[in-house]
Parts: sequence; C-alpha cells; structure tokens
Amino acid sequence: MSLADTVKILAFDVFGTVVDWHGSIAREVDAMGLGVDGNAFATAWRAGYFPAMDRVRRGELGWTRIDDLHRMILEDVLARFGVRSLSPEQVTHLNRAWHRLDPWPDTVAGLHRLKSRYTICTLSNGNLGLLTNMAKRAGLPWDLILSAEVFRHYKPDPETYLGVGQVFDLPPGQTMLVAAHKDDLRGAARCGMRTAFITRPAEFGPGRTVDTSRDAAFDFHATDFNDLASQLGC
Amino acid sequence: MSLADTVKILAFDVFGTVVDWHGSIAREVDAMGLGVDGNAFATAWRAGYFPAMDRVRRGELGWTRIDDLHRMILEDVLARFGVRSLSPEQVTHLNRAWHRLDPWPDTVAGLHRLKSRYTICTLSNGNLGLLTNMAKRAGLPWDLILSAEVFRHYKPDPETYLGVGQVFDLPPGQTMLVAAHKDDLRGAARCGMRTAFITRPAEFGPGRTVDTSRDAAFDFHATDFNDLASQLGC
Repeated sequence: MSLADTVKILAFDVFGTVVDWHGSIAREVDAMGLGVDGNAFATAWRAGYFPAMDRVRRGELGWTRIDDLHRMILEDVLARFGVRSLSPEQVTHLNRAWHRLDPWPDTVAGLHRLKSRYTICTLSNGNLGLLTNMAKRAGLPWDLILSAEVFRHYKPDPETYLGVGQVFDLPPGQTMLVAAHKDDLRGAARCGMRTAFITRPAEFGPGRTVDTSRDAAFDFHATDFNDLASQLGC
Repeated sequence: MSLADTVKILAFDVFGTVVDWHGSIAREVDAMGLGVDGNAFATAWRAGYFPAMDRVRRGELGWTRIDDLHRMILEDVLARFGVRSLSPEQVTHLNRAWHRLDPWPDTVAGLHRLKSRYTICTLSNGNLGLLTNMAKRAGLPWDLILSAEVFRHYKPDPETYLGVGQVFDLPPGQTMLVAAHKDDLRGAARCGMRTAFITRPAEFGPGRTVDTSRDAAFDFHATDFNDLASQLGC
C-alpha cells in the first residue's frame, strides 16, 4: 500500500503554513497609521511567541492560551515601539489581528482538494476560538480544529502529535503533519507521524531568508498545498 | 438589541437534535440480518448511555470516551439479545454505527442558513473523532467541533456549557444551546446560556412519545432547524 493510501488524517500547522502571519500583521499595523514599520512590528511580536510558549511548556506559567500570550507580548512591543496612543479596546482589536490572518494564495483551493481524499484538521498552538474565527473568515474547510488548547500542551510536546492519532483511534503512522517548519516536522516524526514539508519562502517577510531545502527525513516536499495534493493523488 | 443580535455562537446538541440516532442504528442492525429487532436493539443500546456517562461523572470510571462506553454497552446488549455470531471486527464496525448517523431532513440546509449569521459548533457528549467522521459523511458544516472530550466533562456538568463561552471569550449570554432535550437546555440555562428547543417527535422511534410541549423557560421553540433559522432572521 502506498504512503498516500496508508495516511488517513492530514494535520496542519497553521501560522506560516496555512496563513501568512507576517504579511497580515504588517498590513494591519501599517493601516493603523501608528508611525511604526509594520514589518518590524510583526517580526518583534512574533519573536516573543516561542519564549512565551516555552514558559508554559516549562511550567513557569500555568496553562495560558495564545490569545493571552499574544496580548502580553503586544503590550511589551507597543511600549518598545513607543506607541502610547491606543485605547484598551484598540489594543484588544489589534491583538485579534491573529484571528484575521490571510491564507496563502493556494491554501483554500489546496485544502479542498486534500479534503476530498483525507480528513483534514489543524494541529496548531493557536487557541480554538482564534482558529475558528480565522477559518470562518478565510473559508478554511477544516473537518476538525485541533489545538494545543485541547491537549493542554504546546508543540513540540509529544502529547500534541500523539493526540492526533488518539482522537481518531489510529496509529501515528496513519496521520501526517503538514508544516513549513522543519523543527515541527522533526517533533512529529519522533512521535511516529508521517511528514510533509511545505516551502513558504515569504513567511518572515521581505529580506528574510528561509531554509526551504529538501530534507530526506521528511516523506513529502511540496511547494504549496496544490503541489502536495497532486503528489498525494487528490 | 434583539436576542438574535446578542447571541454570537450557536452550540448544538447532536444525538437526537442533529442526527436521527434511533432510525440510523435500527436500520444498520436490521440490515445485518442478526435476527433481532432493530428498533428494540437501538432502544436497548441507547438505554445504557446515560448510566454509563453517570459512572464517569461520579468518578466511578476514569475519563472514558463515548466510543468506549458504546462498546461496553454493546457487548452487554449483544449478549442479552443472544447475538453470538459476530467477529470482534464486526462488533467494532457495528460500534462505529454511531459515526454514521443520518441527519434529519432539515439538518444540513438549516445549518447552512444558521451558519450564514452565526458561528455554529457542536456541544456533544460524543467524542471528537466520532463527531468529525459523522460531519464528514453527512456534510454537517460546523465551524468548530466541541465535545465533552475537550472539557473532560460530560453534559450536564457546568464545565461543558460554560466552556462554549470560554472558548470564544464571550459571556455565556452570547452563546445559545440548540437541543431537543429539555434537561440539556435547563443545564445550559442554569449556566447563563440562551436556549432553543427543537422538537424531534420521532427521536425515539415508532410508538414512543416525546414531550414536545412549549416551555416558557426557553428562549426559542422551533419545529426544526429551518424554523429556527427563520425565527433568527437567517
């Protein structure tokens, strides 16, 4: 049986893989006319993301959703960029920019193709409300939204990768992570998941280079979701 | 502001409200040619459901998913009906009949109408895998699948009803439970949710009567999802 036949569930990383967080955040910040550089602001906001999750993963912070981590980081970034003009309601609205991220151009069509053969779900560190609002706005046709919030563990904790198979009562080898990040895919592979690497060279915005080299450790290497769908016979 | 405007999230009970569990199970059992009455078998299987969940709710059983509770009950019902001809694989397949329940005739069209104005999610004691397989087969267009499995509590524990608002960062009064069961709706109302009662007179199969009387305690009383959509201006 081919790997395309063995796999039943495709689980997608979301930020960077499904949606363009950098471009979306930069555009929102630029449109607000705060007198700051949207690209630099987006980069600084995202830079706080992994350290904040790591505090949760180490147990230094109790379980905290990404919406709340984003807010903590945002307050700090606003101060560093010297932005003092926003009301609390405006800060809340800006924090929700992560619910309004735009998909990459191939995302929606590619997901529909993949969904015709597989059960497609998210496996994201984003919280359920964020992922639901994002999907409704962008038309992402998930069969199921799975989140760190369900497992109370952030990736790359094994509970998240193993959780996909457990939810569907399938061995990990019948589930595949689709992601633009090699460390995420390595975490999945260590738990027995299959892996599909998607190159997203523009993820971090203009002038930033991204490692999009082929890595034999992963089962698939695709330039976008349509390419993956074609490789999987969808 | 009207109640239809205040509410943002519609959370649906599933077994009986969205899908016809009795008819679907009876048809599967009849089609298997086991020499038992499908209606009686469906009734007996479902009769074990609330006592089994109550064992989990009381802490007598650790967290156990509905798929596993259904299986425990099924083994007992098969023995009581004198069915000894099934292989373990056939029992597993039969247990998965709960993943293959058919929607009521109004369900899919009604959900699409409601989804045009609201975020629609499940709030079911069914597990995530069951609800996902059911939705994919029946074309149920959920924005989010929420389950007792996420909260590790079965309805009517308050953690489930309160969990809907928490997921979306909304007060309970901006969320509404849609259900065919008055006890479920009363549990939701106690937690501050709004309530919509759907009459499903055929839920328990032929010859069984169902209390479909109007109850002033609930915010809406509708004969099906299309009726509810009309009342909500969708």
